[in-house]
Amino acid sequence: MMSVAIVGASGYSGGELLRLLTRSDRVSVKHLTAQTQAGLPVGAVHTDLARVLPLAFEEFDAGKLDGLDCAFVALPSGEAMHIVPALQGRVGRIIDLGGDFRLPDAALYERYYGHPHTAPGLLGTAVYGLPELHRERIRAASLVANPGCYPTSAILGLLPALARGIIKPTGIVINALSGVSGAGRSKSVELSFSEVNENIRAYKIGTHQHIPEIRTVLAEACSQDVTFSFIPHLVPLTRGIYSTIHADLDGACSPESVQSAYEEYYRSEPFVRVMSGIPEIKNVVHTNFCNIATHIEPHSGKLVILSVIDNLVKGAAGQAIQNFNILFGLPEHHMLR
Amino acid sequence: MMSVAIVGASGYSGGELLRLLTRSDRVSVKHLTAQTQAGLPVGAVHTDLARVLPLAFEEFDAGKLDGLDCAFVALPSGEAMHIVPALQGRVGRIIDLGGDFRLPDAALYERYYGHPHTAPGLLGTAVYGLPELHRERIRAASLVANPGCYPTSAILGLLPALARGIIKPTGIVINALSGVSGAGRSKSVELSFSEVNENIRAYKIGTHQHIPEIRTVLAEACSQDVTFSFIPHLVPLTRGIYSTIHADLDGACSPESVQSAYEEYYRSEPFVRVMSGIPEIKNVVHTNFCNIATHIEPHSGKLVILSVIDNLVKGAAGQAIQNFNILFGLPEHHMLR
Amino acid sequence: MMSVAIVGASGYSGGELLRLLTRSDRVSVKHLTAQTQAGLPVGAVHTDLARVLPLAFEEFDAGKLDGLDCAFVALPSGEAMHIVPALQGRVGRIIDLGGDFRLPDAALYERYYGHPHTAPGLLGTAVYGLPELHRERIRAASLVANPGCYPTSAILGLLPALARGIIKPTGIVINALSGVSGAGRSKSVELSFSEVNENIRAYKIGTHQHIPEIRTVLAEACSQDVTFSFIPHLVPLTRGIYSTIHADLDGACSPESVQSAYEEYYRSEPFVRVMSGIPEIKNVVHTNFCNIATHIEPHSGKLVILSVIDNLVKGAAGQAIQNFNILFGLPEHHMLR
Amino acid sequence: MMSVAIVGASGYSGGELLRLLTRSDRVSVKHLTAQTQAGLPVGAVHTDLARVLPLAFEEFDAGKLDGLDCAFVALPSGEAMHIVPALQGRVGRIIDLGGDFRLPDAALYERYYGHPHTAPGLLGTAVYGLPELHRERIRAASLVANPGCYPTSAILGLLPALARGIIKPTGIVINALSGVSGAGRSKSVELSFSEVNENIRAYKIGTHQHIPEIRTVLAEACSQDVTFSFIPHLVPLTRGIYSTIHADLDGACSPESVQSAYEEYYRSEPFVRVMSGIPEIKNVVHTNFCNIATHIEPHSGKLVILSVIDNLVKGAAGQAIQNFNILFGLPEHHMLR
Repeated sequence: MMSVAIVGASGYSGGELLRLLTRSDRVSVKHLTAQTQAGLPVGAVHTDLARVLPLAFEEFDAGKLDGLDCAFVALPSGEAMHIVPALQGRVGRIIDLGGDFRLPDAALYERYYGHPHTAPGLLGTAVYGLPELHRERIRAASLVANPGCYPTSAILGLLPALARGIIKPTGIVINALSGVSGAGRSKSVELSFSEVNENIRAYKIGTHQHIPEIRTVLAEACSQDVTFSFIPHLVPLTRGIYSTIHADLDGACSPESVQSAYEEYYRSEPFVRVMSGIPEIKNVVHTNFCNIATHIEPHSGKLVILSVIDNLVKGAAGQAIQNFNILFGLPEHHMLR
Repeated sequence: MMSVAIVGASGYSGGELLRLLTRSDRVSVKHLTAQTQAGLPVGAVHTDLARVLPLAFEEFDAGKLDGLDCAFVALPSGEAMHIVPALQGRVGRIIDLGGDFRLPDAALYERYYGHPHTAPGLLGTAVYGLPELHRERIRAASLVANPGCYPTSAILGLLPALARGIIKPTGIVINALSGVSGAGRSKSVELSFSEVNENIRAYKIGTHQHIPEIRTVLAEACSQDVTFSFIPHLVPLTRGIYSTIHADLDGACSPESVQSAYEEYYRSEPFVRVMSGIPEIKNVVHTNFCNIATHIEPHSGKLVILSVIDNLVKGAAGQAIQNFNILFGLPEHHMLR
Repeated sequence: MMSVAIVGASGYSGGELLRLLTRSDRVSVKHLTAQTQAGLPVGAVHTDLARVLPLAFEEFDAGKLDGLDCAFVALPSGEAMHIVPALQGRVGRIIDLGGDFRLPDAALYERYYGHPHTAPGLLGTAVYGLPELHRERIRAASLVANPGCYPTSAILGLLPALARGIIKPTGIVINALSGVSGAGRSKSVELSFSEVNENIRAYKIGTHQHIPEIRTVLAEACSQDVTFSFIPHLVPLTRGIYSTIHADLDGACSPESVQSAYEEYYRSEPFVRVMSGIPEIKNVVHTNFCNIATHIEPHSGKLVILSVIDNLVKGAAGQAIQNFNILFGLPEHHMLR
Repeated sequence: MMSVAIVGASGYSGGELLRLLTRSDRVSVKHLTAQTQAGLPVGAVHTDLARVLPLAFEEFDAGKLDGLDCAFVALPSGEAMHIVPALQGRVGRIIDLGGDFRLPDAALYERYYGHPHTAPGLLGTAVYGLPELHRERIRAASLVANPGCYPTSAILGLLPALARGIIKPTGIVINALSGVSGAGRSKSVELSFSEVNENIRAYKIGTHQHIPEIRTVLAEACSQDVTFSFIPHLVPLTRGIYSTIHADLDGACSPESVQSAYEEYYRSEPFVRVMSGIPEIKNVVHTNFCNIATHIEPHSGKLVILSVIDNLVKGAAGQAIQNFNILFGLPEHHMLR
């Protein structure tokens, strides 16, 4: 029986983690922390879990987590870096679902997140938790930086084409559409139903914090710089990310050969489904799958890659569980099917 | 007082035409045809118009429309070409909201619409009704081919950049998101609420009938071939089109100079709003405006053009009214504000 | 040309008022006040009106409104009572869209609104602006209290049945479903898209401020106390109120006789449509109509009254315009069709 | 290991059954039938299950199901009665999710379903599968008629109040709001996104087939006739049923005593949560819970019961699994948490 805690358990990612963790008979959730909800039972916030999980939120106290096998950290950006140093040495492994440990250096972090990094020494030690890329490194990691939702979708979509030299690494266009839960449980006029419903808008053009994350991971994976435009959009649905990616082919190839290369690349992956046809959010919602299809657009000759995930599962809590399973030697789909 | 008819008045575009036409004290709607609803009062189908417009749908009979000043044709694709020849000579002017007369030749039509054109002789006589491009030709037209919804958004977004030589005419990427009303009032599992809600999907990759429409208009306007990828997506909202367009700059230029070029290009246009910041569907819903913004994405150096419309207004009925106003010398915003 | 101002013009009701007022060539909007948005152009908040209405929001200054024909007050509850006294004597007529002057006495106001009334002397002078009930009194009013959205729907639904003695005035059940715009433009987790979408919830059971409003108006109109349960629900749509009302028949009667009584009662009303069948929000959205149908439920023998409106039009701005037209002798549908 | 089949596995209830069944390591799904999709893999229809469940749909052939422990029948109304007789004797137990075996006599069936019952002899043998009412009878049943979605919500909401004599059994009002998935996967203009989104409508007033189901079950459970009005409404969400029930108290009682009676009544039930406050669809979506709260409305003195479920889980597939667990002696929450 493995013992775990969730630090920052009252948000949407924390709730999804709880839903997944309750499926296991091999994991015991010992502590849930949430500053503003401390004292409330889980079911007061994640109301579907009332009676299912008889725990209450507590204030964070590193000492209480002493000796746990794993801590999931699901705090808003900028908070984990104040917490994780205190957890190291106390808990066996740490999986951070936020953005604090995904970038390789503090300067890049500060530029995109808008405040200095307070634990820069940890940046080099965290392993970027994309199992399809870093499974072996994750297995040995003490701190896993769980990927962002947009990066998961974009990187998984691009990896085979870049790794196999199918496309040029420059001039790539990533258009991504996100459900609103990606913005977290927050109060703002912009995210109110009356403003989001029957509306669409792009946002953070050229400044989104996932741009350097995608760039760093792809550059390292492909041993070359990769340039792309990334335009995120908010659309009126709760869950899901839909990435439509355009890239220039690097030499002639057929749709069938691209499809084969993708299938081959992900042959052993339990949570990537290379498909023919056109993916939909419905394919993946409430699952840990990433569905990917490729098309060669006849008029432009461009490769069009469609990559979809559920932002709260493969884009957050589900991938964290997948990483947990890797860390602790469980079947990778444990709690995920 | 001008007299008009709507042929195919029971669909979403027909309903929107009626809503706009009832605002005028200078236009009298004489006949509304709708095969399957013939005999029903308008308010039985467009229920918001019950009591407002005391007319009933009739079966189509060209003779009854004799002498009218104008006929709006709002039929499903492939039906107008059987009707329009019979109307010519009987009604003063014809505005077709469908796709039957937008392409320049019958072979191209057949390739994308999947059936032969039965009135190819008319293809050369119709004027493509984008006022921002063809205002003078529209003024003299007897048959106006009202533009498609995606093309309106994409062409208006691209015209200034192409006309002013700001971007290269090759390698353009058009990603477009459409509300469901664009698919018309139709019965299908794919368009049912349970399938569309909480879902997103691309469709008709490389085969959409608006591809040759956009290409033909841009090529003629810019006197050169323009190549692009066009990927339409269905998103869970009723109205609106959001086009995110990427293009390569043809030489260095600043965001400010692009913005100025766009403002200059559309300076006199009553229904194009060049804006700073990021457009949203909310900006234009229930209006005849097209809102456009441009950004130079810092990482990729690409020009990003965002162009949004209400597909039922500027993308269909509103633009048809704008064309009507041009045809008959009315103020261009008559019925549209 | 009549001159008007809107005090509190940046909310959803203020925006809808502006959309309607721009349709008129007989009304000139002189001032728009909005504390937090003072200085911004209208189009920065009501983005669809950019370029249509070249005005900016100002801070409220009663002196500036001197001599205007009419002021619309569209402030959050509890604010109008601080403003209206200063407007009286300066502007010809005042139409308040909030709840401050709808109840007959200060004690009842304090009980349901949770704070004391600071202008109790005005409570007796305001006319409750439901044209179907008080048209003649409105014509002469200097201060019109525009009805609430739920009360408009519920009262119009019940009036004929109570006035004609068709139902008992006790034991009535009003279940009402509201779109989210009824809550105004506000920031709260509860009204965020992620919480409202795919969700339904009742709220304010037994405490909603519209309960005494409905009760007072019905009691006065019917010269007897009327008791009812009123349960409001929030459902995931932006606009609309759907009221399903159950009442016990007071003696045998046929569906046809009830229908006739309703039609007779509203025969001359321009904005009530008594219909057969079942009303839908779609019937009335973006219109000033209230659609009403009655059914006698066979198993229970109860009268079921269905009454639907657009909460921002007949439930707020549209009804305010209707009242404006009555006050100034304009055709009642001016700006409303 | 228990072996099961689903007859009619391509609809929304069939898909939800599959999602639940894949969670079990004690159940093996042997056959899935679906006439129109025969030959297709499961993942072609229930796309989220691609790769998870490597089965294909087959045409129905009773012989193939010989010897299975259980068959779930999830066919459209009127089809199960042609299939179930052929299954009896071949499979151990049958759980029918449709309406064919829920009513006690063929005449009542014909009146509400509009066609004759072809297996009237089975009507007396089926056990109505509401575990909270019939757990012991279910345990011994060979044919379980799984309750309808509206009846589950309404009956669970009313049972304690009726059984404990808290309310009068006459004059009850049930207003129920349903998500669109309740209508099944079907093609119709009425259920298209463009018609359902931003809309609400009541339907089937006085004629809904769930009226006799609710009436029969309550009458038998309470040994007296129970009269009520039942008004179903379609609202724009995919999943969920929200029932707001009004009833007259039969003698004075306090909110606390009602609450206690409900808690007491459902003390041992694993899937009913009596709660304070106000239930929301979010409380129960994707769970097998029914959440219930009671309020005494101060103005009317009526008892207001709020009862919510997920129509595809507790209102269909989840309850079927709960019944399966009862039939086969598994923990009742197996596959349901």
